[in-house]
Amino acid sequence: MSSKYEKMWDQLGMDIPAHDGLLKALGNFYGDIYLSQEGRLKGAEYLDFVLSEVHGLRIQELVEAKERGSKVIGTFCVFVPEEIIWAANGICVGLCAGAEIGQEEAERVLPRSTCALIKSFMGFKLARICPFFESCDLVVGETTCDGKKKAFEILDEHTPVYVMEIPQMKEGRDRELWREEMVRFMKCVQGLTGLTISAKKLSEAIRMINDRRRVLLRLNRLRKAVPTPISGRDALLVNQISFYDDPPRFIQKIGELCDELEARVDKGEGVVPEGTPRLMVSGCPMAVPNWKLPFVIESSGAVMVGEESCIGTRNTRDLVREDGRTVEEMLDHLVDRYMKIDCACFTPNNERLEHVVQMARDLEVDGVIHYALQFCHPYGIESFRLERTLKEAGIPVLKIETDYSNEDAEILKNRVEAFVEMIR
Amino acid sequence: MSSKYEKMWDQLGMDIPAHDGLLKALGNFYGDIYLSQEGRLKGAEYLDFVLSEVHGLRIQELVEAKERGSKVIGTFCVFVPEEIIWAANGICVGLCAGAEIGQEEAERVLPRSTCALIKSFMGFKLARICPFFESCDLVVGETTCDGKKKAFEILDEHTPVYVMEIPQMKEGRDRELWREEMVRFMKCVQGLTGLTISAKKLSEAIRMINDRRRVLLRLNRLRKAVPTPISGRDALLVNQISFYDDPPRFIQKIGELCDELEARVDKGEGVVPEGTPRLMVSGCPMAVPNWKLPFVIESSGAVMVGEESCIGTRNTRDLVREDGRTVEEMLDHLVDRYMKIDCACFTPNNERLEHVVQMARDLEVDGVIHYALQFCHPYGIESFRLERTLKEAGIPVLKIETDYSNEDAEILKNRVEAFVEMIR
Repeated sequence: MSSKYEKMWDQLGMDIPAHDGLLKALGNFYGDIYLSQEGRLKGAEYLDFVLSEVHGLRIQELVEAKERGSKVIGTFCVFVPEEIIWAANGICVGLCAGAEIGQEEAERVLPRSTCALIKSFMGFKLARICPFFESCDLVVGETTCDGKKKAFEILDEHTPVYVMEIPQMKEGRDRELWREEMVRFMKCVQGLTGLTISAKKLSEAIRMINDRRRVLLRLNRLRKAVPTPISGRDALLVNQISFYDDPPRFIQKIGELCDELEARVDKGEGVVPEGTPRLMVSGCPMAVPNWKLPFVIESSGAVMVGEESCIGTRNTRDLVREDGRTVEEMLDHLVDRYMKIDCACFTPNNERLEHVVQMARDLEVDGVIHYALQFCHPYGIESFRLERTLKEAGIPVLKIETDYSNEDAEILKNRVEAFVEMIR
Repeated sequence: MSSKYEKMWDQLGMDIPAHDGLLKALGNFYGDIYLSQEGRLKGAEYLDFVLSEVHGLRIQELVEAKERGSKVIGTFCVFVPEEIIWAANGICVGLCAGAEIGQEEAERVLPRSTCALIKSFMGFKLARICPFFESCDLVVGETTCDGKKKAFEILDEHTPVYVMEIPQMKEGRDRELWREEMVRFMKCVQGLTGLTISAKKLSEAIRMINDRRRVLLRLNRLRKAVPTPISGRDALLVNQISFYDDPPRFIQKIGELCDELEARVDKGEGVVPEGTPRLMVSGCPMAVPNWKLPFVIESSGAVMVGEESCIGTRNTRDLVREDGRTVEEMLDHLVDRYMKIDCACFTPNNERLEHVVQMARDLEVDGVIHYALQFCHPYGIESFRLERTLKEAGIPVLKIETDYSNEDAEILKNRVEAFVEMIR
């Protein structure tokens, strides 16, 4: 798609040769991991289309929306209440953070012992390779972890960054702080877009984002079938795309994909033979194109049927109440919903341990792979208690700590294969 | 001191053979690093005494105080408002976290990529080697970094841990949260000791801890002299001891030591020849017996004249107002004072950058060594902006990232020597 969009990318100030290199690598990677799958769904055409146009058509849509006066706001975290962005005629997009890009540039400003996700977004920005970044009027960071909290101070020197303070406990005082942060954020967004958020617009945004969560919840429910009707890779990609694509289009297309899956399930058809070990992954988010572990899992004779992560159930589990009548009421409902997020940034975070066990049982998994990015303290340390909780519940666990490089691909494969062999 | 206190240590449930090993190593280490210094101060006898009795006489004092009904509360962070502890007839002690101890035990519950300080306190507890830990009625943790925040969840399974929530910004809402945390902590301490904190007791505690800060401030001022009258190692040890020893005794003894230093300064006498490069260290705290870097610095032809750290100026810079009349007023003053702490846990934390430059100028240093524990994200990442700020101010900087092992001692020495050579 290079030629078609080159002018746009150039106008965005991107490094075109480096970006071409990324697109080529991404295309090959996608071919190997996705297009090579057998018996793929018709609905996967949408996934292929979105991914092939993720830096093209979607960016063009953003540019056009900006020309019509809209503002693009980039985020890295499911804590950012995107309903507020959409209600102010803004567009919310997840920013690139899933590839080993611009590492040299990133390590000039960050310690080497920073997690791959943080190095990635810094690298994407410093190397000017992410068209989402370059289209953003504002980047919204948060204080969910030390690494991001402090890296945003540096990122702010290269693009305007607004930081939301996330509480670290879930007591009354934390709720109050988060409520204030929500209002502060609303004012910021209104200031940027020049629009005052009305109850009607906020209500519509709440419904739209709930609808997106609902269709993802439907997808998750369908994956419970034995045999499961969709590969874990494809399901992860659906979740990943939900952060980028136009919500109404996404909701419609994934609804159609779910219809197709439902028909499969009704016929008892699956994407893998019955008896294939079912695994779920729990832990750190996997941003596009971080498909390393899912590919390893599904090349090791197992199938991935659930993702307990921010790009997974942590982002879809809870809906916002839809009966709010005033902006104030709706803000309360947003606060309620977002305070339910069971991120490892909270202490204690026992509800996550309960959620993971419940999810493992619901999905009838044979084991859980805990996935932590190297140097991620919140999930890395929490994995100790999670592993013990799962073992006490009789659920086998494998703990993986890795980054975005391919250097440990063989070791990972050996470990996952041994785990699958053990639980088979 | 083994024989004399063995019964007490045994009653505390400690691992005596392992503890004997630590004391022996510590004794040798102290001999090499401290006792070998030439022209040492008379006042240093107090330091030698406290250190030789740190696990003996001081623990006996704690045990005796407990027998009289007092409670011992252990902390790891200068954010814990110890005035509240003392006002309730409690005893506040800093817990062991400066040696590579019980690492195997610690790494069974924590990722390897956890900072040395956190691994150390976990190791001390799991291996039952710290008599302070074993004397504690309560350990108070805080949410200053992801590593500690999540490690306290695990530590809580081995000893009762109470966690204070530290805000991440310094806005009105953060102040409110911290004020509520202060009250919650006061209730907790009162519940533990069974005493209600009176205005009189709180006022006395505020004065006592201010006095301790004042004597440390006096020490810092004396170190400005050229040539400086005390080695950096000794000055660091004074700061370290301030967390352990009985405050009135400490205040008196360090006052005497300062008198001695003042006489030296008046005579123009120093601990090093005039012209010796003056360095200050900035960054992570150095808990006893973490003397690796100071020893390297002072064996490389330089002298350390200041420590911008929690075991240094971050803990002594600001006093609490002493004119509060009611408990509520004093709590407000405590909130004011503690919210001034320029810990890297805050975002942004520009005041720290200003403080470091100011301190470097006040102390007339020839350079700053930024010290970050490996895997410490807050100080590790903040060092990027700090380094740049110092360079812009024309102050040479050397960035060191290390842990508690001695494996990199040679590399450190080479780097520090090259730096000293460069700034000489």
